[in-house]
Amino acid sequence: MNQDYILPDNWSIIEEGFDAERVESSESLFSIGNGAMGQRANFEESYSGHTFQGSYIAGVYYPDKTKVGWWKNGYPEYFAKVLNAPNWIGIDIIINDEILDLSKCEVKNFRRELNMQEGWYNRSFEAILQNGTEVSVNVTRFLSLVSDELGVINYEVKPLNRAAQITFKPYVDAGVKNVDANWEEKFWEPLDVQHSGNEAFVTARTYKTHFNACTFMHNSIFLNGKDLEILPANAEASEDKVQFSYTIEANPNDTAAIIKFGGYTVSMNHDKDKLADAAKNVIDDAKAKGYEALLGEQKAAWASIWEMADITIEGDVKAQQGIRFNIFQLNQTYLGKDPRLNIGPKGFTGEKYGGSTYWDTEAYCIPFYMATKDQQVARNLLTYRYNQLDKAIENAAKLGFTNGAALYPMVTMNGEECHNEWEITFEEIHRNGAIAFAIYNYYRFTGDYSYIPEKGLEVLIGIARFWHQRATYSTNRDQYVILGVTGPNEYENNVNNNFYTNYIAKWCIDYALEQIEKVQENYPADHARVMAAVQLDAAEMLQWKNVADNMYFPYSEKHGVYLQQDNFLDKELVKVADLDPSQRPINQKWSWDRILRSPYIKQADVLQGFYFFEDHFSKEDLEKHFDFYEPFTVHESSLSPCVHSIQAAVLGRMEQAYTFYLRTSRLDLDDYNKEVKEGLHITSMAGTWMSIVEGFGGMRVKNDTLHFEPRIPQQWKGYSFKINFRNQVLKVSVHAGETNFTLEGERELAVVVNGKEVTVEPNTLVTV
Amino acid sequence: MNQDYILPDNWSIIEEGFDAERVESSESLFSIGNGAMGQRANFEESYSGHTFQGSYIAGVYYPDKTKVGWWKNGYPEYFAKVLNAPNWIGIDIIINDEILDLSKCEVKNFRRELNMQEGWYNRSFEAILQNGTEVSVNVTRFLSLVSDELGVINYEVKPLNRAAQITFKPYVDAGVKNVDANWEEKFWEPLDVQHSGNEAFVTARTYKTHFNACTFMHNSIFLNGKDLEILPANAEASEDKVQFSYTIEANPNDTAAIIKFGGYTVSMNHDKDKLADAAKNVIDDAKAKGYEALLGEQKAAWASIWEMADITIEGDVKAQQGIRFNIFQLNQTYLGKDPRLNIGPKGFTGEKYGGSTYWDTEAYCIPFYMATKDQQVARNLLTYRYNQLDKAIENAAKLGFTNGAALYPMVTMNGEECHNEWEITFEEIHRNGAIAFAIYNYYRFTGDYSYIPEKGLEVLIGIARFWHQRATYSTNRDQYVILGVTGPNEYENNVNNNFYTNYIAKWCIDYALEQIEKVQENYPADHARVMAAVQLDAAEMLQWKNVADNMYFPYSEKHGVYLQQDNFLDKELVKVADLDPSQRPINQKWSWDRILRSPYIKQADVLQGFYFFEDHFSKEDLEKHFDFYEPFTVHESSLSPCVHSIQAAVLGRMEQAYTFYLRTSRLDLDDYNKEVKEGLHITSMAGTWMSIVEGFGGMRVKNDTLHFEPRIPQQWKGYSFKINFRNQVLKVSVHAGETNFTLEGERELAVVVNGKEVTVEPNTLVTV
Repeated sequence: MNQDYILPDNWSIIEEGFDAERVESSESLFSIGNGAMGQRANFEESYSGHTFQGSYIAGVYYPDKTKVGWWKNGYPEYFAKVLNAPNWIGIDIIINDEILDLSKCEVKNFRRELNMQEGWYNRSFEAILQNGTEVSVNVTRFLSLVSDELGVINYEVKPLNRAAQITFKPYVDAGVKNVDANWEEKFWEPLDVQHSGNEAFVTARTYKTHFNACTFMHNSIFLNGKDLEILPANAEASEDKVQFSYTIEANPNDTAAIIKFGGYTVSMNHDKDKLADAAKNVIDDAKAKGYEALLGEQKAAWASIWEMADITIEGDVKAQQGIRFNIFQLNQTYLGKDPRLNIGPKGFTGEKYGGSTYWDTEAYCIPFYMATKDQQVARNLLTYRYNQLDKAIENAAKLGFTNGAALYPMVTMNGEECHNEWEITFEEIHRNGAIAFAIYNYYRFTGDYSYIPEKGLEVLIGIARFWHQRATYSTNRDQYVILGVTGPNEYENNVNNNFYTNYIAKWCIDYALEQIEKVQENYPADHARVMAAVQLDAAEMLQWKNVADNMYFPYSEKHGVYLQQDNFLDKELVKVADLDPSQRPINQKWSWDRILRSPYIKQADVLQGFYFFEDHFSKEDLEKHFDFYEPFTVHESSLSPCVHSIQAAVLGRMEQAYTFYLRTSRLDLDDYNKEVKEGLHITSMAGTWMSIVEGFGGMRVKNDTLHFEPRIPQQWKGYSFKINFRNQVLKVSVHAGETNFTLEGERELAVVVNGKEVTVEPNTLVTV
Repeated sequence: MNQDYILPDNWSIIEEGFDAERVESSESLFSIGNGAMGQRANFEESYSGHTFQGSYIAGVYYPDKTKVGWWKNGYPEYFAKVLNAPNWIGIDIIINDEILDLSKCEVKNFRRELNMQEGWYNRSFEAILQNGTEVSVNVTRFLSLVSDELGVINYEVKPLNRAAQITFKPYVDAGVKNVDANWEEKFWEPLDVQHSGNEAFVTARTYKTHFNACTFMHNSIFLNGKDLEILPANAEASEDKVQFSYTIEANPNDTAAIIKFGGYTVSMNHDKDKLADAAKNVIDDAKAKGYEALLGEQKAAWASIWEMADITIEGDVKAQQGIRFNIFQLNQTYLGKDPRLNIGPKGFTGEKYGGSTYWDTEAYCIPFYMATKDQQVARNLLTYRYNQLDKAIENAAKLGFTNGAALYPMVTMNGEECHNEWEITFEEIHRNGAIAFAIYNYYRFTGDYSYIPEKGLEVLIGIARFWHQRATYSTNRDQYVILGVTGPNEYENNVNNNFYTNYIAKWCIDYALEQIEKVQENYPADHARVMAAVQLDAAEMLQWKNVADNMYFPYSEKHGVYLQQDNFLDKELVKVADLDPSQRPINQKWSWDRILRSPYIKQADVLQGFYFFEDHFSKEDLEKHFDFYEPFTVHESSLSPCVHSIQAAVLGRMEQAYTFYLRTSRLDLDDYNKEVKEGLHITSMAGTWMSIVEGFGGMRVKNDTLHFEPRIPQQWKGYSFKINFRNQVLKVSVHAGETNFTLEGERELAVVVNGKEVTVEPNTLVTV
C-alpha cells in the first residue's frame, strides 16, 4: 500500500483536506464516466499546480506515429491513442478581480466525494483569496447515464466575509494535447466555432481518423437558487475556444451559482454536418428537465445498475468500498450498449497504454459483464473480435504467417496492432488463446451455442491455424515446441516453451477441432459456409492435431510442477520474501536484464493456466503449483492478485485470499503500484469481482450447472452477489454456516453447493 | 553480391557512366578521409537528385536525446552521434545563367576515380545544359594527410561548343543537419561569420558538447592554368554561411578553374577563441605550397603508408582491389596519431550507428593496426579504454553491479553508454571480454608487458568483477550459469549460457588472476598501488576463481559440439542452403520473432570463440564446430565472413576461404548487404586484413614466435604482406611452393613455417 487518505465508506469515495501532492492521484480516483465519455476529476476553475487534465470520448482515437529507437520489421507504423478530448468542464472563477486558483489561496475544509450509489461527484471547500475574500465553494458534477452525451455541473460560490463581485467564465476548448503524444503534435483540428445566447459549440476533427466532435455548453446563472436568466456580458471566441463571462454581485452568504450543461456530440453517432444541431437537442432536453430532474434520473439509473451488479460485504467497510469502487468504475467505462466499443485498461481515467482492447477484455472482463448484464453484452464483446478477424489475419501475415492464420493484436482500437516492442508485439502471443477461451467460456456460462456456428468458428479456425504454424518441430525432442515467446509474466521475454502458452495453444487447436465437428453435425449449413470461406480441409486439420497431440510441456520431476519455461530452474530461486524490500517494486528499481534473469513473476502465468483450466488439474496439482510459484510472484501487474486470491480461496487459505482480495480491490484506492495518478486499472477491476464470486463464492459452471463452494474470510460477517445465469438472476448470500439463494426468474434452477445438488425455486429463499 | 559497377583495378576505385540510382552508393564508396576529417563523395555543385550529404570531423559528436518507444530503467538519456559537420566543399556553378545540376542536364562520359595509391578523388564528365552549353568538368579533391585540417579542390570547367560566362560560387555553410537526428533538431549553433578577400570563416559550436569548429575556405580562380588573382565580385553572408561569387568569361576549350582550400580548425586542437587564426595559418601554409606541391605531398604521404600496409595479390584484380580498398579506408579513418580518437563502424562515410567505439575495435581493428603501425598505436587504443574505466564502472553500477565491476559500453564516444535496446545495451555483455582479450593480444604480439602493470591490470580487474557478479549459481546444475545475454550472434536475444560469453567470461577471470599474480611477482610497486586502488583481497579472488572453475558450458554429446546457447537444438535446424533465397537477407524479410526462433546466425558466435581461443581446441574440434555452425550462418553482419574465411583456410578449404575472402573484402564495393549508401563498414575491413594474414598466411604468435602456415587460393598466383613484429618489419611473400621472408630490422628473427623453425637474417631473402 502506498497511500491511505481515502476515507472508508460503504458507498462513497471521500477525501478530506487539501494536499497539492494528492491532486493528480485524486483526479484519477474521482473520475466519472458514463460509458460514452469520461472525465478526470480536474477542477473546473483554473489551477496552476500539478494536474493531469483528461477528458475522453469513447471510441474516438488517434493513430499517433510510432516512436521507437530501433525499428524492427513488422512494427506497426501507428499507435492508436486514447485521445484527450476537448474541455467542456472549464469555468474560470473571478472573485473581486482575483482569479480563484487553489494553489494560490488558503484552502480549508476541502472535501471530495464520489457517490457511487448515485453516480455523482462533489467537491467543496472554503478559500481565503489573496485579496482577503473568503468564499465557500460547492461543486457537483455528473455524466448522465440517461443522456450519455450530457455532462452537468452545478458550481456554487458563497462569499463568507464580505460582498463579492463574482465572474463565472465558462468555456469549451478544443485546443487540447495528449501528454503522451509521441511528437508533441496536436491531434485535433479546429473546424468551426459558434455561439449564441448562453450556448456555444466548438467543432473539431481528429487528424487522420477524422472523427468530428462538437463540444458544447449551455450555462445558467443562479442567485440563491433563482435562475437570473441572464445572457453573457461578453463572449470571446477563437478558432478552437469559446468563453463566456457572467458577472454577478453577491452579498455575504448569498449563493451564486452556474449550472453548466456540456458534453460532446460525435460523428460516430450523428451526421457530421449536424453535430451542433444534435448538441442543441441535448441542451434543449436538459433545459426542459432541469438540474434536479437530471440528477434524479442519474440516481435512478445507477440504482438500476446496482440492483444487478452490487456485491455487499458485511463487517468490512474497506473491503466493501473496494468492490463497489471496482464495480462502479467498470460500469462507468463500459455498459455494453455499443458493440463498437471495448474496455480500455485505463478506461476514461488516463492516457497510458493507449488502445482500447487488450486480452484483459477476454481474460478478465467478459466474466463480469456476462454475469451482471444481459448476455448480449458479452456476445457484443465477442463479436467485436469477430469483426476484427480480417485485421488479425493481416497482422499475422505481417509476421510471415499464411493461409488465414490470425494473430489478434496486443493493443488495438480498430483491429490493427498498435504496440511496438518486439518482445510483446511479436512474442506475447498467448493473447490469441484468451480470445478463443472467451468463446468457450461464453458458451459454458450462457449456454448460447449459436455464436459459434454464426461467428466464433471462424475465429477459432484462424487462431488454430496460427498455433499450428507457430509451433516448431524439435527433432531433438520429437515433439512440438513454441520458441521465443513472452508469457503473461512479462518479466521474462523471448523464452521457450512457456507452459501457459503451449498449454493454451494445444487447447485452442483441440477446441477448434471439436467445434468444427460439432458444427458439422448440428449446423451443417454453417459448417459448409465456413469451410468454404476458410478453405480448410481434413489434411490440414490432421496437421493441427499432430501439433496439439505432440505438444511439449516443460516439467520438473524434482519439483513435480510444470515449468514456467524451459530454463526457469536455472534462475537463482530466491523468494520474494527474502528479497530486500528496498529493491521493490523491481520494475522501478532494477534494470531490465536483472528483472529478466530473476525468478520474479509479474503476474500469474502458470497459475493463469491453472485458473482457466482448473478442471484439467487436481486440487493437489494446484496446491503444488501455487506453492511453487506464489513465493516468486511480485504482483507488479494489476492483473495478478485476483487470480492468486481465487486460488488461495480454493485451497482454503483464507487469510492469503483476503490479503490478495484487498490488494486487487483497493489497488488504486491505496495505490499499491505507486502510479494511480496516471489513471485507474480498469480491466483488473473485473478480476476483483471474480475474486469474490469465483474465489470466495467458489462459483463455477460445470455441465450446464452452477456450482458453489462458499467460503468467508474471517474479517467478514457475510457477503452477497447476484449473477445472471441463463437469463435468470440468482442472488447468493453467504454467511457463516449458511448460504442463501434467491432466484428472480421463472424456471427452477439446480445448483450444486459443496458438491450437493439443491433446487432453487423462483422467488423462494433457499438456505443451504 | 548486389552491385558490380565498380571497375576492377589494382589501385583505383573507378565508376564509369552516370546513373542517378548509384549516386548515394558512390558517395559512400568514393569517400575520402585523413584520420582527422572525412567527406562523402558529394558533388561540389548543386545536385537536386537523391543524395546523402556527409562531412565529418573526428572526435566531434553530439549527444542526441534518446528516442525509444518504451523506456527501461538503465537506458542512457543520450546517444552520442557522429555529427554531420559544416559543409566546406560546396561550389555552386553557374554557366551562361544556368545552374549546373547533374540531375537537370544531359551527362556524358561521367567517371569517378578514387586513387588509393595517391590518396585523391577525381570526377569528370561532360554536360549539355538546358541552355545548350556543353561543358567538360574535371574535379580533383583530397584531404591532406600532411596538413590534416586541410582539404583541397581543383574544379575545372571547359566550355566545349560555345563561349560561356562561368560563375563559381564557393561557400562554407554551418547550417547542416543530421539525417538521423532523433528530434529533427539542429546540432550546430552558429557563432561567428567572417570574410575578407578570398577567405571566409564560419564558426559554429555544437550544442551541449560545445565543440567549436571554424569552417574555412580560400579560393583562387584560374584561366588556362593562370591564377587570375581576382577577388570575389560579391559575398553573401548569413549567420551560418558565407558564399562568394566569381565570374569569368571563357571561350570554347578554355579551362576555367577554381582551387578551393577548405576544412576545419576545431577546439579539440586549438584555443577556441583562435580558431579563425588557426584556419588562416592553414590557408597561408597551403597558399605558400600551392596546389601541385600539396598534391605531391599527399602522394608521398600515402606512398609511405602503403610501404608498410600494402598487401599485394597477384593474378586476381578484384581481390587486389578489395584488400587495398579495405586498407585504404582503415587508414583514412584512423591513423593512430590522436589517442582521443577511435574507429567508428562507418568511419567518415555515414551517420548510422553513432558512437565511435564498439567492440569491433578490440576484436577486429587492433590486430591490423598493431601489425601495420608502430605498436604505440595499438597501445593508444588500449589506453582509450583505460581512460574510460570509470565510466565503465558507472555503467555497470546503473545496472546494479557494485564494488568496481566494469561494463564497457556497447557504443560510445566518451565512455558513456549510448545504445538503448535492452537486448543489446544490457545483454550483449560479451563486449567486455574482447576488451580484456585485446590486452592479452597486445602483449602476445608486441611483447610489451609494461601496459599491464601500468594500466591494463585495473581494466582486467573491473572486468573480472563484472563477470563474477553477472554469473548466477544454478542449484539445479551446481554450476555457474550466465542468464539473459545476447552473444555476437545478434539474431538470438536474451538467451542463457551463450557458449562464447560463458567461455570468455571464464577466460577473463582466469587471465585477470594470472596477471595479478604475475604483476605481484614482477612489478610489486604497481601491484601494491593497484590493489590499494581497487580494494581487492584474496577472499574476493577466491570467489572469482570459484565462478571460473565452475562455469557451465552447454554441450551436445550427440553432435559433439558446444551449443551456441542452452536451447539451440530446439530450433528447426534447416540449413541456409535449404532456405528459399527470396527470404534473404532475413533481416530485411522477416519479423524479429521469426529471426529469433530461427537457427540462423548473423555472425560468428561459437566460431568467434574458436577464433580467439584457437589454441585451446584441436583442429578436429574446430572442424566439427565449423561444420555444425557454418551451414546456419547468414553472414548478415559485416564482421562475419572474415572469421569464417580464416577458419576455412585453417581447415584447408580454400575455395570456401576464398569465397568468404571476396565477400569480406568486397562487401561494400559489391554491396552484399544492400545498404552501402548508408556508409561503409570500416571496422570489418580490418577483418579482411586478418583473413589474408591470419587466414591464408596462417600467421600466429605462439610463445613469442611468429608462426606461418601459408596457403594460396587457386585463383591467385601469390600474395605478400608486411607485419611489424616487435619493432622489426617482416615482409612475407607467398607463391605456390615457396614462401619468401625479408626482414627490415637489425636482429635476426626466428619464424616457424608449417611447424619448422627458420631463421631470418635482416635484409636477407629467405625462401622456404
